[in-house]
Amino acid sequence: MVDIAVMGHGVVGSGVVELLIKNHDSIEKKTGGIGINVKYILDLRDFTGTPYDEKFTKSFDDILNDDSVKIVVEVMGGCHPAYEYAMACMNRGKCVVTSNKELVAQFGYQLLAAARDNNVSFLFEASVGGGIPIIRPLHQCLAANEISEIAGILNGTSNYILTKMFKEGADFASALAEAQRLGYAERNPAADVEGMDTCRKICILASLSFGKHIYPDAVETVGITGITKTDVAYAERWGGTIKLIGRAKMLENGKVFIRTSPAVLRYGSQLAGVDDVFNGILVRGDAIGDCVFYGKGAGKMPTASAVVADVIDQTKHIGRIPKRVFWGPAEDGWVESADRCAEKQMVRAAFSAPGMAEKQVSDTFGDVDYIHISGRPENELCFVTSEISYGKLSELKSVLENEAVRVESCIPIFEC
Amino acid sequence: MVDIAVMGHGVVGSGVVELLIKNHDSIEKKTGGIGINVKYILDLRDFTGTPYDEKFTKSFDDILNDDSVKIVVEVMGGCHPAYEYAMACMNRGKCVVTSNKELVAQFGYQLLAAARDNNVSFLFEASVGGGIPIIRPLHQCLAANEISEIAGILNGTSNYILTKMFKEGADFASALAEAQRLGYAERNPAADVEGMDTCRKICILASLSFGKHIYPDAVETVGITGITKTDVAYAERWGGTIKLIGRAKMLENGKVFIRTSPAVLRYGSQLAGVDDVFNGILVRGDAIGDCVFYGKGAGKMPTASAVVADVIDQTKHIGRIPKRVFWGPAEDGWVESADRCAEKQMVRAAFSAPGMAEKQVSDTFGDVDYIHISGRPENELCFVTSEISYGKLSELKSVLENEAVRVESCIPIFEC
Repeated sequence: MVDIAVMGHGVVGSGVVELLIKNHDSIEKKTGGIGINVKYILDLRDFTGTPYDEKFTKSFDDILNDDSVKIVVEVMGGCHPAYEYAMACMNRGKCVVTSNKELVAQFGYQLLAAARDNNVSFLFEASVGGGIPIIRPLHQCLAANEISEIAGILNGTSNYILTKMFKEGADFASALAEAQRLGYAERNPAADVEGMDTCRKICILASLSFGKHIYPDAVETVGITGITKTDVAYAERWGGTIKLIGRAKMLENGKVFIRTSPAVLRYGSQLAGVDDVFNGILVRGDAIGDCVFYGKGAGKMPTASAVVADVIDQTKHIGRIPKRVFWGPAEDGWVESADRCAEKQMVRAAFSAPGMAEKQVSDTFGDVDYIHISGRPENELCFVTSEISYGKLSELKSVLENEAVRVESCIPIFEC
Repeated sequence: MVDIAVMGHGVVGSGVVELLIKNHDSIEKKTGGIGINVKYILDLRDFTGTPYDEKFTKSFDDILNDDSVKIVVEVMGGCHPAYEYAMACMNRGKCVVTSNKELVAQFGYQLLAAARDNNVSFLFEASVGGGIPIIRPLHQCLAANEISEIAGILNGTSNYILTKMFKEGADFASALAEAQRLGYAERNPAADVEGMDTCRKICILASLSFGKHIYPDAVETVGITGITKTDVAYAERWGGTIKLIGRAKMLENGKVFIRTSPAVLRYGSQLAGVDDVFNGILVRGDAIGDCVFYGKGAGKMPTASAVVADVIDQTKHIGRIPKRVFWGPAEDGWVESADRCAEKQMVRAAFSAPGMAEKQVSDTFGDVDYIHISGRPENELCFVTSEISYGKLSELKSVLENEAVRVESCIPIFEC
């Protein structure tokens, strides 16, 4: 039997404890008969009436100083004190398993280095994609591949909202309200709808795929709060949908393009059918080609499932070789400046002189594909450009704006 | 550096050697600096002009008797001598990695037992789903789950043919001919189109998911050779498509339902959009819910990618704990008799007395949902039954046939 501690008894933490109890027998079998015992649950709040009241402690030191505790599950969320606790545990020879994407995105390099130096494991399957297996498949199953690109619908809340907007014609505000009513969105939905959650997850995936740590603040991040019913109508007319996509790609110059933003996906492309609260992750490797992982990207039991899988894996390795995942620090300038990265854009603009509009567009953007919808205002045009860098894009937007054209939206086209 | 041998230099075998050379540097890094050296390639044929002519041998004993060879890759195909060679290698303390689904489906239990007894690993990620990571995710990442069901489009050749039939209105023969022209189907396509390949793969997935070996000959297997353009038209009208599905499910009585056959899937369901040569695998677990894995299920480099990932993983474990996958033998009767398994069926039949047809249907099948297409022969009816066991189905078919009704096709509905 291996003693473990679970730090945090919120949604995921309580799911972890429940799952370890519910599937106790099969889990014991999968650990080769070793079995897993939750010795401590750390939470500052009081819990009574659970079947395991006696396990609760409010003191981190109980866990840290108990050498029988070999694995510590960190499901508190936030960076502090999660970072300090995780470091302290590893420095005392304990393995750490986490579901905390903020922690991994911000301190992954330091935590992995501490794991290596202390000859323990730091595992984080649950930090991306909820229960969808993605970290281990990327790290182990696709190890023979050079990964060239990874992209995903990584936030269930925004995906639910966008799906509502497309399938039911809802606007952003009412779709958000519905998501909150159903418990899919938090009362403060900023991290989800403004893209920060997606940004953290694509940082983790890109760091793992390309081997160097990418920090969230190096990533241009746009959320979905600006998406309107008009954008939805044009995207549909073009034959596509809009998804919040985190994406990272190795460029020919050896640098990395990474971005979080809404993007227009053509229907039938590999991620366009991922709807509602589901996540989908596309991995492109030189040998495998394209590979997609799909499932519930959040929620109590899916996330707990990923945490417990890491705990089981670690239990099998107790006293033996630690699981070794590692990425290094990135050199300055390794993440390519957004200004130099190019994508096609769906641009929507209002023109003061409708008779001149198409000439103004071709004078600035060259050849474009217009999207026509019935009932559009006479002074509005929407078109898809050829590939254009973000630097050039803001330059051309300024040109148009100087000519009294109001650029309403620019949404990149994501081809996959 | 770890010395390995590759037995077989066909499509997959040559891909394995090429991939180990092409991605040599990143693979060395992923093995923690150990590196992988192909010391022998076993093939009875002569190969000259490769960059590694000196590695070829025609003698299995060269490999078996060389104690420096720690890992043997079996990519010869077929059960014999693959089985004997794999057993001999493990009995001499070598780990074995294979892509051979026929071997694993037929002898998985014996091979895994030999691996356990010799304290070595037997790995077979490439045997199902080509390069799609599925074996390790099932075994490790979803370890916290009780798997209740697993189902997949597991054969790219049949899926290509069915996609052609639906998207281009081709009939089976011309779609097969096109698949052969493009190299997607072999000259003798029996194993693919008659379902045996899918059957072997679902046996492997079910054995792993449910922990007991299921042999291919215990699985009712129907191929796609009987699917007609008329079936396609009715399925489309119903709002679905037809896919060759291998599926296995834990029943409430503790037995397993397992079957390989064409099935009607409603558009929008999770596997219905998996087209062309792609594979898709749906796993249903108690904690994760549904999870889908999608990608290229065959081909030289995707399959080689999975083989090399196993070799890398094994290399990291050399001299340490072997990777432990195991399933036991199944008791008699563990696979539920097909007669007692129930599914909804899409039934198409020709009636000698059209005026009596609907009465004959309701007298035998009770309430059904009729599917109407324009231009159907007056004496033809197609309908979807409620859930009905295969035993009852053949009984009712006999009743109809005694009434001079010709049952043209029965295709189960697969709801997922």
